[in-house]
Amino acid sequence: MAVPPSTYPRRLLPLFLGLFQGALLLFFALFVTYDEPSAQDTSLVANQVYSSFPFFQDIQVMLVVGLGLLLTFLPRYGFSALTHNFLLLNFSMQWALVLQGLLHHFHHGQIHLDLHKLLLSVFAAVTVLISVGAILGRASPCQLLVMATCEIPLYLASEWVIVTCLGVQDVGGTITIHIFSCYFGLGVSKALFRATQQPLHPKETPTTSSDLMSVVGTLILWVFWPSFVAVLCQPGDAQHRAILNTLLAMSASAITTVVVSGLLDRDGKLSPGHVQNGSLAGGVAIGVLADMAVPPAAALALGSLSAVLCVLGFRFLTPLLARKLTLHDQCGIHNLHGLPGILGAAASVVAVLAAPQDTAGSHPSQLSPAGGNASEAVLEGQWGSRGAGGRALCQAAGLAVAVAASLLAGLLTGSALRLPGLARPPERLCFEDSLYFKIHDQAESPGPDCSAEEGALALKEQV
Amino acid sequence: MAVPPSTYPRRLLPLFLGLFQGALLLFFALFVTYDEPSAQDTSLVANQVYSSFPFFQDIQVMLVVGLGLLLTFLPRYGFSALTHNFLLLNFSMQWALVLQGLLHHFHHGQIHLDLHKLLLSVFAAVTVLISVGAILGRASPCQLLVMATCEIPLYLASEWVIVTCLGVQDVGGTITIHIFSCYFGLGVSKALFRATQQPLHPKETPTTSSDLMSVVGTLILWVFWPSFVAVLCQPGDAQHRAILNTLLAMSASAITTVVVSGLLDRDGKLSPGHVQNGSLAGGVAIGVLADMAVPPAAALALGSLSAVLCVLGFRFLTPLLARKLTLHDQCGIHNLHGLPGILGAAASVVAVLAAPQDTAGSHPSQLSPAGGNASEAVLEGQWGSRGAGGRALCQAAGLAVAVAASLLAGLLTGSALRLPGLARPPERLCFEDSLYFKIHDQAESPGPDCSAEEGALALKEQV
Amino acid sequence: MAVPPSTYPRRLLPLFLGLFQGALLLFFALFVTYDEPSAQDTSLVANQVYSSFPFFQDIQVMLVVGLGLLLTFLPRYGFSALTHNFLLLNFSMQWALVLQGLLHHFHHGQIHLDLHKLLLSVFAAVTVLISVGAILGRASPCQLLVMATCEIPLYLASEWVIVTCLGVQDVGGTITIHIFSCYFGLGVSKALFRATQQPLHPKETPTTSSDLMSVVGTLILWVFWPSFVAVLCQPGDAQHRAILNTLLAMSASAITTVVVSGLLDRDGKLSPGHVQNGSLAGGVAIGVLADMAVPPAAALALGSLSAVLCVLGFRFLTPLLARKLTLHDQCGIHNLHGLPGILGAAASVVAVLAAPQDTAGSHPSQLSPAGGNASEAVLEGQWGSRGAGGRALCQAAGLAVAVAASLLAGLLTGSALRLPGLARPPERLCFEDSLYFKIHDQAESPGPDCSAEEGALALKEQV
Repeated sequence: MAVPPSTYPRRLLPLFLGLFQGALLLFFALFVTYDEPSAQDTSLVANQVYSSFPFFQDIQVMLVVGLGLLLTFLPRYGFSALTHNFLLLNFSMQWALVLQGLLHHFHHGQIHLDLHKLLLSVFAAVTVLISVGAILGRASPCQLLVMATCEIPLYLASEWVIVTCLGVQDVGGTITIHIFSCYFGLGVSKALFRATQQPLHPKETPTTSSDLMSVVGTLILWVFWPSFVAVLCQPGDAQHRAILNTLLAMSASAITTVVVSGLLDRDGKLSPGHVQNGSLAGGVAIGVLADMAVPPAAALALGSLSAVLCVLGFRFLTPLLARKLTLHDQCGIHNLHGLPGILGAAASVVAVLAAPQDTAGSHPSQLSPAGGNASEAVLEGQWGSRGAGGRALCQAAGLAVAVAASLLAGLLTGSALRLPGLARPPERLCFEDSLYFKIHDQAESPGPDCSAEEGALALKEQV
Repeated sequence: MAVPPSTYPRRLLPLFLGLFQGALLLFFALFVTYDEPSAQDTSLVANQVYSSFPFFQDIQVMLVVGLGLLLTFLPRYGFSALTHNFLLLNFSMQWALVLQGLLHHFHHGQIHLDLHKLLLSVFAAVTVLISVGAILGRASPCQLLVMATCEIPLYLASEWVIVTCLGVQDVGGTITIHIFSCYFGLGVSKALFRATQQPLHPKETPTTSSDLMSVVGTLILWVFWPSFVAVLCQPGDAQHRAILNTLLAMSASAITTVVVSGLLDRDGKLSPGHVQNGSLAGGVAIGVLADMAVPPAAALALGSLSAVLCVLGFRFLTPLLARKLTLHDQCGIHNLHGLPGILGAAASVVAVLAAPQDTAGSHPSQLSPAGGNASEAVLEGQWGSRGAGGRALCQAAGLAVAVAASLLAGLLTGSALRLPGLARPPERLCFEDSLYFKIHDQAESPGPDCSAEEGALALKEQV
Repeated sequence: MAVPPSTYPRRLLPLFLGLFQGALLLFFALFVTYDEPSAQDTSLVANQVYSSFPFFQDIQVMLVVGLGLLLTFLPRYGFSALTHNFLLLNFSMQWALVLQGLLHHFHHGQIHLDLHKLLLSVFAAVTVLISVGAILGRASPCQLLVMATCEIPLYLASEWVIVTCLGVQDVGGTITIHIFSCYFGLGVSKALFRATQQPLHPKETPTTSSDLMSVVGTLILWVFWPSFVAVLCQPGDAQHRAILNTLLAMSASAITTVVVSGLLDRDGKLSPGHVQNGSLAGGVAIGVLADMAVPPAAALALGSLSAVLCVLGFRFLTPLLARKLTLHDQCGIHNLHGLPGILGAAASVVAVLAAPQDTAGSHPSQLSPAGGNASEAVLEGQWGSRGAGGRALCQAAGLAVAVAASLLAGLLTGSALRLPGLARPPERLCFEDSLYFKIHDQAESPGPDCSAEEGALALKEQV
């Protein structure tokens, strides 16, 4: 691959994004409109806006600021982590808008855009942002975009099977979002890095100030998480309950993380990484049953247990997987999204079995984008006729589908990321902002004429 | 006290928290439920959620992110300040939930949890977060937890006397929260450090970047403060007025702080500490009369005056108290919460005297957790029959009770914190993140094998 | 100007602010009240608070935290940028409250304050915060305050002409706020620095960490921008559409910025400055037609185009203007507010021409502070009777008025800022926090006894 530096595929990222943005514009011009002004009552629309827009904004803050900051724990990769997270959110959201529109909302050649559909696209984008965590810092932005391009349709398909076909209840996206994106990301990581052990990189170790920024991100996510879980709930009791359950679970997580992290260390010192992740584990686990009629104590227990799993995962499982399976998980997404997600899904099986028929949580068709009245009625019948055992079986089946589909899809996608020309950074230049940004900090840049050298190196070392 | 390092009580924190979380779980399993789904009209619940949840989220951002960042002004203690603040919020909120449930909401062996009760618990937790400021960096997390354990019941008792018995109007918690927590914290500090002067620690001086983070915290608190003051107001005019009064008071504080800080300095330079605290002083003072029928000019005047007091306090009173009373106040909580609080309470006496009977602000029973219709009617009668003079006397009595009770309670609690085994850090290791966290920053850590050495030192130097 | 250091006008800032705050207090005491409690239905007021307060808080976060952080890209001027932004917001908001009250809301010797009027004052203050960007770091706080004092009345006059007289539709303030403040700021910069080329200052170059803080500010602005654009829309469809259009435009901006910035660089690296500004360009452009009945594709196209203009402006136009016109634009406000603003205004001309009469966006009188029913009816007639061509002409005329008025006003104001005694910092001490704040960072301070030396220097070098 003796490509001279001048033709180094650095133009790939802008060209790819430019083509995408142009095609999206064309698609919107042809097919996407807003609702007719006369179609709905003004005060009704206003009420919908007032009731859902604050939730929507909370979720945007979580994803753009909170998650972005959480990823800045790599001291020389903070700018990239924050900016790539932002770029991927926008790309994935737009891409999901197109695909969801085609799949679900295409009526008479038109897609009517509203805040709810935008929100569902943002939910789809979350999967990409989570999966990235497995390969953060070792993949180029081009690779991340290709990953996003593949993951969004696969997520939509998986979500359709799990929610619409199986009727799984999952208002907070524990199964459909967290578990799917976790195992997808791990699959990508496995296929991308194969059997090569990733050695500890000198730039990988957080500094005090990068850890501080990262924990600020955690706190922002922690505060707004209830909005994420509750936004798609039935207004009223179910939504109220979802908010309370999430608050309780996350509060228990915060305390339990300190307990477990402190007990694991010889000197009783806490690991910043445990605090950054464990405090959020309860939010992942509670999503699937937040609006069900579970007692408050169950939310507390789930929050505690998921924090235990998360911290133990960081301490024991991640090193084990790295050693035995050469599985690389940069941010420990398996500990934050995988283990608590599985715990939550298992708890939802129990909750469905234990709950009386009529007080179960939100109807599954709520999450599925408005499928029309006819299909809803069908679903209602199908769902109502199932017993508690059947519904519990469905929850378990949903979990199985999510894990299997995402692992397979991730492995395939990860293989695609090995295509030459996607500019995977060489080991020496991983975790380095200056590879992607004109960063002015002399003291921190790797050398005087690094840009040319990097280009050459990147090509030589590329597989 | 020749305890060998191996038995150094570093396990105390996780064990204490673990036991607490377990006991809380048991308590919740036995006594706490959600409201019956059929108990209330769906659209009514939905409206309640929509109207109070955005306020609740604003308050959470204030406490978790804003207050946390404000405390990061200590350059090598930022991670601890942020994380301990978060931990204490969760612990105190859960602990308050239990105690409040037992005291006020225990009906037929059950406590019905809702967002309002959670909010009241968060308010209780605020007292702990404020009090910590007096001893920040010089106390161990164990000591802080013991302090929280003592402060929450004492706050609930004091709040019950002030609001329910005396009928004090204090919608923004100026007396019940700010004054109580300030003098409680000072009492703790006095009893903990006794007559030993705390010398200026080399790690105590803020750096530019720690000051910047801290002022970001101030700005977050400043923006969301109106939500804190107005959340418990009567919807409608009173709440609208509370928001406006708080905005005016805080805007006046921001400007007046610059005036006073600039005039005090020989070169006209502003002190970062003044800006960080003075800008918020108006929010503390206005709380007690935010919803009363005071003219807008009064809010402005109160905001200005409280900023004057706050900055003068930092400049003259804090050094004086340190010298004369050997009273240590790390964050200057007396200047931000004590002096403006007293000013606000005094202003409320005037406001109650001046206001016509029927346009007075919110009913006191609002703050007191729903005491049932019967007791409310009694209160109404008791309160309605009092003249303006009587009510003004009550406000003054409330202030006196808050100061006296909190000082006494603080002194007792501070003595308890001197118990051996609570791992108070030795002077040399104060203000040091690496004592509590596995911080990876070599350049900043005190030594190669500090953890063992620290443990030993901590024991030797401990009183 | 041989003023000895002891009389150096450092007291000017606090004295000016102190007098202002005192006069404001007097004005409020004489003329400002709240609405009578009985004037409106309680639930109506409550609904108004619930529907507009979350928007208001979002906007406050944008201005205080988001914009403040965006300005911290100057590594040694971050504390000043953040604090001066905060101070100017408060000063300008109060000053606008007085002037707006006198101009529009003075009935029977009284001004009735409510949240809507406060919001309009905050909007007026935004113009000052934007204009500051042209001279950030090279002007003293006194100069900034004088600028704010002049800009607010000029903005109110210009807004009155544009919105009330010309009937321009501009719900998001593209013309009235962004274009006005941009050319005002450029005029000030031109008149202040005249023909002296501003050389690149060694402290002007961002570091990685200051760029990171700045991009966090961008992200906060990006998230909450829809609230800024939509807060003054008609509730219902128009507001819903404004939110969606803004989201689409800003999402397209984010992606297009990466495209253009990447294509412009030889190595395909992105400039932090492009990301920080280009991502927001769509929000500036969309404001003027956010609530009009434009198709979603138009919002996307506008967002993309404005990002293209913004990045190209940074790359080519700013250096050109600096060279040819010796026009200094520190933050590149012409690229973020000027070019996208003009693009948006031009697009609004097209939109008005293309839109059917009856589905046009919000009524212009909405932005103009409640002018009473009579004048509204007059406006309605005047406006309704105009054809699409006439209304398009008005949009264009509004743009012309905004550019011309603001440039002229800015040039005059900038000349006033050259008055001696306003303490313009000497070149050597530009971009330096320690000139205005008692910053404790020894390593970063310019010298051991810099404060006295600075004072002397500042006087000597002052023009």
